[in-house]
Amino acid sequence: MSELRKDSLVDRWVIIAENRAARPIEVTEAPAPRTERACEFCEGREAATPGETLAFRAPGWPADGPGWRVRVIPNKYPALWLPGEPLEPATGSPLFQRAAGDGIHEVIVESPRHLTASAEQTPSELTEVLTAYRQRMQALRAAGLVRQVLVFKNVGAAAGASLAHLHSQLLGLAQVPRAMADELAGAADYLAARSACAFCDLIAAERAGGERVVLDTGDFLLICPWASRLAYELCLLPCRHASHFELDEQSSLPRLGELLQRCLAHLENSLGLRAYNLWLHSAPFDSTGYDHYHWHIEILPRATRIAGLEWGAGLYVNPVPPEQAAERLRAVLV
Amino acid sequence: MSELRKDSLVDRWVIIAENRAARPIEVTEAPAPRTERACEFCEGREAATPGETLAFRAPGWPADGPGWRVRVIPNKYPALWLPGEPLEPATGSPLFQRAAGDGIHEVIVESPRHLTASAEQTPSELTEVLTAYRQRMQALRAAGLVRQVLVFKNVGAAAGASLAHLHSQLLGLAQVPRAMADELAGAADYLAARSACAFCDLIAAERAGGERVVLDTGDFLLICPWASRLAYELCLLPCRHASHFELDEQSSLPRLGELLQRCLAHLENSLGLRAYNLWLHSAPFDSTGYDHYHWHIEILPRATRIAGLEWGAGLYVNPVPPEQAAERLRAVLV
Repeated sequence: MSELRKDSLVDRWVIIAENRAARPIEVTEAPAPRTERACEFCEGREAATPGETLAFRAPGWPADGPGWRVRVIPNKYPALWLPGEPLEPATGSPLFQRAAGDGIHEVIVESPRHLTASAEQTPSELTEVLTAYRQRMQALRAAGLVRQVLVFKNVGAAAGASLAHLHSQLLGLAQVPRAMADELAGAADYLAARSACAFCDLIAAERAGGERVVLDTGDFLLICPWASRLAYELCLLPCRHASHFELDEQSSLPRLGELLQRCLAHLENSLGLRAYNLWLHSAPFDSTGYDHYHWHIEILPRATRIAGLEWGAGLYVNPVPPEQAAERLRAVLV
Repeated sequence: MSELRKDSLVDRWVIIAENRAARPIEVTEAPAPRTERACEFCEGREAATPGETLAFRAPGWPADGPGWRVRVIPNKYPALWLPGEPLEPATGSPLFQRAAGDGIHEVIVESPRHLTASAEQTPSELTEVLTAYRQRMQALRAAGLVRQVLVFKNVGAAAGASLAHLHSQLLGLAQVPRAMADELAGAADYLAARSACAFCDLIAAERAGGERVVLDTGDFLLICPWASRLAYELCLLPCRHASHFELDEQSSLPRLGELLQRCLAHLENSLGLRAYNLWLHSAPFDSTGYDHYHWHIEILPRATRIAGLEWGAGLYVNPVPPEQAAERLRAVLV
């Protein structure tokens, strides 16, 4: 069973998911061996996974067999599923709040080949991955079963990846998780105070200053954020205002895919930063009042350890000023 | 130089500290070798560290030499120091806020011997460590230079420790970091709504239910919290209301030290959880309005990985329900 519990004091939801204890952990600190035979995400092993919810394949190839380029499947060890177990309300204290673990947890397998690094992926392959994000988000929006979708990607053991084959994950929830809620509230406050989108203003200010800009393609801006939590943190924003990734133009995805693939490949090859987390932040589906939001992608290379201070106090210590990080990234990327 | 920067949207301070890039990283995933000769925290190597700010040693032994039991020294690679560099306000956008990196960053070396696990420490040794926390917090409170003190401890590489010799860290800041501010705000809301301390109510509710209680000594309660973020998360609370650790009774420290040492030793030896983070949460020094707060110790064993979801969304997935964790811990601890 899966259950959502709330830490009422700090307004933080936790998913209690016993089934997740059973999942295999393959990735170690050492580079993963290229054992195609053992990997369930590789082409030809489709029967080892749950049936696909979306796949891009050439015409004539049947579902759940070979021939695909990107494949979306339910997570075999989901943190949430639909419908969750019905739950009695917890008793004993208003401090013990809970909710049924209703949700969606999917895996986007990014290649039929056993790729373990973004440098091995082509820009067009990554563009199809982004297209899969978009189509699944559109389908979930239309289905009306979840409120917030989070797409994220863990690459490398240091970033918490448990399987080496390049994949992203999609989580759909009835709740807006704390980190997203904070960002939405901050953007709403900014809009109320200044009658402007905080992200649009940020883009203008970063372009004017330039010292934290890594790349500006006109339609996308890649920056090292002002208050970067870790060395070489990156934020990739569409320059035109858009709150929802799934509602933004399909036509810009190839340019986004190309920029993102170059960026990730250089992190890996030029800077040796092979472990990273990536998130797509996009407004909740019940979007009224979220027009102040601006979707973006955050990338956190795991160059430094995350220890007690970062964790317990929410206070990050970053030894590389973002201006230096941006300068170094410009030198390899531009 | 060291500089505090604020992510205004999510109200999160980040310390940009270039000097931290130079610090040595000794701990690897493998158990650290007992190389007393190379460790600067071992007795006899006092000249390799900055001069002590506090030490417990037998009468007649001079400062900064051997003969100590617990030794507090400035961090050689501090994230903050006093006075910080004066800073011009940042320009360009209200989104670029910063503050001087004023603060204190100390290391509490927990033993003159090269201990690397709490199971090797005696309860009375850990009690002296807690006494050192208390005395340094009292001194910093009296000095009036910082507003919030955070004491934390990283044990094991998986928990972000960079040196194996058991040590805690103390950080004093002019700001209240986000995680503490959230807890303080939540407790204030609870007090306003129910005219009671949330932590006192929690203690009563946990005692009444009992299923998440690991140990109840009458003056301290050890529980697996309702919304535990990770497997075997623990919270240790004084049963009597007290907002500030440094103002609470000295006389209870031996009982706290004994309980904490037993708890940590069993995590390591009985459960094999050798990497953990520990934090002391105590109210800010400017305590007016913080009488609703209740100091406590949080312990997070690193049994599971912290990946993109936990990090990017503040959403934790815990495969071990706290009731099961408490049952297993009771079996070994009681």
